[in-house]
Amino acid sequence: MTLTTTPLPADLLALDTRDPLAHTRADFLLPPGVIYLDGNSLGPLHRSVPARLAHAAQHEWGDQLIRSWTGDADWMHLPDRVAAKLARLIGAQPHEIAVGDSTSVNVFKALAAALGIAPAGRRVILTDADNFPTDLYVAQGLNALLGGGYELRAIPNTEIAQHLTPDVAVVLLTEVDYRTGRRLDLGGLTAQAHAVGSVTIWDLAHSAGAFPVDLGGTGADFAVGCGYKFLNGGPGAPGYLYVAGRHLDSAPIAIWGWMGHADVFEMAREFIPAPGARRFVPGTPQVLGLSALDAALDAFADVDMQDIRAKSLSLTSTFMALMEPLLARHPLELVTPTAPDERGSQVSYRHPHAREVMGQLTARGIIGDFRTPDILRFGFTPLYLSHADVWHAVQGISAVLDGGAP
Amino acid sequence: MTLTTTPLPADLLALDTRDPLAHTRADFLLPPGVIYLDGNSLGPLHRSVPARLAHAAQHEWGDQLIRSWTGDADWMHLPDRVAAKLARLIGAQPHEIAVGDSTSVNVFKALAAALGIAPAGRRVILTDADNFPTDLYVAQGLNALLGGGYELRAIPNTEIAQHLTPDVAVVLLTEVDYRTGRRLDLGGLTAQAHAVGSVTIWDLAHSAGAFPVDLGGTGADFAVGCGYKFLNGGPGAPGYLYVAGRHLDSAPIAIWGWMGHADVFEMAREFIPAPGARRFVPGTPQVLGLSALDAALDAFADVDMQDIRAKSLSLTSTFMALMEPLLARHPLELVTPTAPDERGSQVSYRHPHAREVMGQLTARGIIGDFRTPDILRFGFTPLYLSHADVWHAVQGISAVLDGGAP
Repeated sequence: MTLTTTPLPADLLALDTRDPLAHTRADFLLPPGVIYLDGNSLGPLHRSVPARLAHAAQHEWGDQLIRSWTGDADWMHLPDRVAAKLARLIGAQPHEIAVGDSTSVNVFKALAAALGIAPAGRRVILTDADNFPTDLYVAQGLNALLGGGYELRAIPNTEIAQHLTPDVAVVLLTEVDYRTGRRLDLGGLTAQAHAVGSVTIWDLAHSAGAFPVDLGGTGADFAVGCGYKFLNGGPGAPGYLYVAGRHLDSAPIAIWGWMGHADVFEMAREFIPAPGARRFVPGTPQVLGLSALDAALDAFADVDMQDIRAKSLSLTSTFMALMEPLLARHPLELVTPTAPDERGSQVSYRHPHAREVMGQLTARGIIGDFRTPDILRFGFTPLYLSHADVWHAVQGISAVLDGGAP
Repeated sequence: MTLTTTPLPADLLALDTRDPLAHTRADFLLPPGVIYLDGNSLGPLHRSVPARLAHAAQHEWGDQLIRSWTGDADWMHLPDRVAAKLARLIGAQPHEIAVGDSTSVNVFKALAAALGIAPAGRRVILTDADNFPTDLYVAQGLNALLGGGYELRAIPNTEIAQHLTPDVAVVLLTEVDYRTGRRLDLGGLTAQAHAVGSVTIWDLAHSAGAFPVDLGGTGADFAVGCGYKFLNGGPGAPGYLYVAGRHLDSAPIAIWGWMGHADVFEMAREFIPAPGARRFVPGTPQVLGLSALDAALDAFADVDMQDIRAKSLSLTSTFMALMEPLLARHPLELVTPTAPDERGSQVSYRHPHAREVMGQLTARGIIGDFRTPDILRFGFTPLYLSHADVWHAVQGISAVLDGGAP
């Protein structure tokens, strides 16, 4: 078993010493003894969240009761305040973002909207065969609901470009593959899709907060995202839907509801959509979940997303380099692209006993994720991880593997 | 202006003295100086909620991180635990209840499911013209999504029975009208609907937690409900969907998602629905909102819903009786039925300046609700209101109206 007393290499220490994001680590309440490489599954607790939740419960709800919808707490506009914080991270205008509902429900709303503005007669929904399950299921389910007239064309994500043919109504893709960490070319594929008249939906679950996203600049049509991964909004945090401003008035709304109405408390019999993307959230804002997400997003208030990306690449490159010797002596296969432009903020390996290996790592406080069938997934979040963490993590992985796991 | 020093009548004091629910008032953290007659809009804070939220955030999320999905916190089954608590209140089996998503999204899922099992060829969705806006909007929106082939037949809720004709596919009703408090005959209308082959959806927003509901006993097909009214789950709490067990395998699921899959972490490409109603919730459980709702539902753990109903009727009867003299000298019109079977747990009056009157009442700490166009709505929650509260509230209403409001 490898001893873990090897000193931290000076070059890694130097990287941490000049890290412009070093100060943000103190913003997160990470448990002692844990190296958390799973912020792409559930982001950790931001230090402002407990007090914010307590305030929302005891003061806003408990003391102010129903008055908080329109009073100081102004719950009615809480989704808009969250949208404003998100906008900068994904290159959107605040009124193009509808915050609320789960990511899955947002995929449903996005796909119904995109199909509604796709060129008449097109029946193909193009997607990645290894897309996140919900994205595949939503497409299958919506097709069934609409009578089964669509074809879900699911192909490997390395072949999307050549399948962008003029029969494609909508292309539904996740920018970063949840297993391999492969990052698709959002801008390039969007341009190609538009060249053949297709409408794009981008799932930003593993993008937003992990690196700069520029929906406006790339001309993306729709996007959805998750509040609880790199945005650190807490378990089951509200998701969001992006609708490019040019589509707001033409994209059909699948789920009409009172909170999407132009005048909520008019309680009119006829639905008149709200001016912006809020029209796409039918129900009452999830105030507790939104409050946690709103507080957590302050972690990004004073950071440059370019710094996030630079550090992310440095962390993942360092990890892959330190892992390299292990590949020679263990049945590990790197499945994450090494080219910086082709990966997100995670690194994954296949291992025949991945589930057991991750179990042993977790028991040592090195928390990553196992993904079926044989993936060891390690997520790297620049806001609270250092190169020293990466180095210690690899020491632990070495110890587990060299120790004969499983 | 009426003096508010009139002593509490002895008969009301006697009712409170022998109130079997008197002890539950201490379970709620109501602000001093407030008589809260708006628990049918937002239930107040249950005393167990702040500690539960703090535990969920700091321990389950902060310390245990991703391990809480399957560890001690077992977030994966939190929706099921909430369903089990709800089941007793609405006469359902736990596996017939899917907890999650907003009430609006649940109306959408219920309507899509109900249309999917309605007799072939029927195109009428029968509803109450004064149904809650979201219910009307969802039906309009789903019809648009499905190509516009359905007719939304919206009629006064006093005429539902005679409109239950054999062309009705689905009847979508809210048991208790949110404005007038009129309660429909859930059992009788369900039987009539079934007699002509129609499928029923009941919106229990103002029913569950307010009085006993027996979905199983009445044979209701689908129901939806709201977590933040009489269930006190907090602002924007998760809603729920009830699907009668006999329909679970035949009712189509509109929104397929990974959390509705039979084996969530298998991450299969094909959707195989979970065995029970969980199949209808596509996305990740909203842990913070669910935790608050789960804690708040303990308020019902040791109470008999028959006691709730008996006290509710006593509170509303008392309120109407005490208000009676005001109707002679102010432009107030009682719009809530006086027959006990025909009302829920609220009492409403029309007043030409209802908005202003409610503003003045709220300023005095008597919190009810204004509903367009001219409704003063007062909700009565047996868990934390006494007959003394009712009496003091009427003293305040008298003072405002006799004082010349608005």
